[in-house]
Amino acid sequence: MREALLEMTEKRLGMTAVVDADDRLVGLITDGDLRRALDRQTDLHAVSASEAMTPDPFTIGPDELAARGLQLMEEKAINGLLVVDGDKRVIGALNMHDFLRAGVI
Amino acid sequence: MREALLEMTEKRLGMTAVVDADDRLVGLITDGDLRRALDRQTDLHAVSASEAMTPDPFTIGPDELAARGLQLMEEKAINGLLVVDGDKRVIGALNMHDFLRAGVI
Repeated sequence: MREALLEMTEKRLGMTAVVDADDRLVGLITDGDLRRALDRQTDLHAVSASEAMTPDPFTIGPDELAARGLQLMEEKAINGLLVVDGDKRVIGALNMHDFLRAGVI
Repeated sequence: MREALLEMTEKRLGMTAVVDADDRLVGLITDGDLRRALDRQTDLHAVSASEAMTPDPFTIGPDELAARGLQLMEEKAINGLLVVDGDKRVIGALNMHDFLRAGVI
């Protein structure tokens, strides 16, 4: 989790993807997941990424419409979405500010 | 910070206001502030709310236009905004999902 925290702060996205040895997406850790992990266990060193992550998170494909991504975020009340290819490899990430900047909303 | 964490999880806003003895707003703790506090100090019990908070956060008045709130969130790249009255007493909170639901964006 220590590494996840630093990654989240460096990339300024408020989330980080968890991938397996083949670089395929297995989970997502958001600031909210981090907070909920702390509610349960105050020692972060004792928490692994897989314990804190949301497994099998909502994603969008690179060729899907941005509007579909926004709809997903609204429906699921989430603030970020990973973009994955057909092999579940993470190729990008979207948040509300990306949609605002792009004029999708 | 332990109390702040629980409050943030209970209210499902990803943030909590810090107020003084007169209930006037002095700061805001978001999930991001929490994460950054953990980057510096892993023992949450040693961190007070005032150490982790963003002092004097951006706010909006109850009679200001919602569009102004959205503009503030875009400009400052923030995901939430507190609504305060003329005495700096917190009367509400807004996030991106509120704006989407209200049809402001």
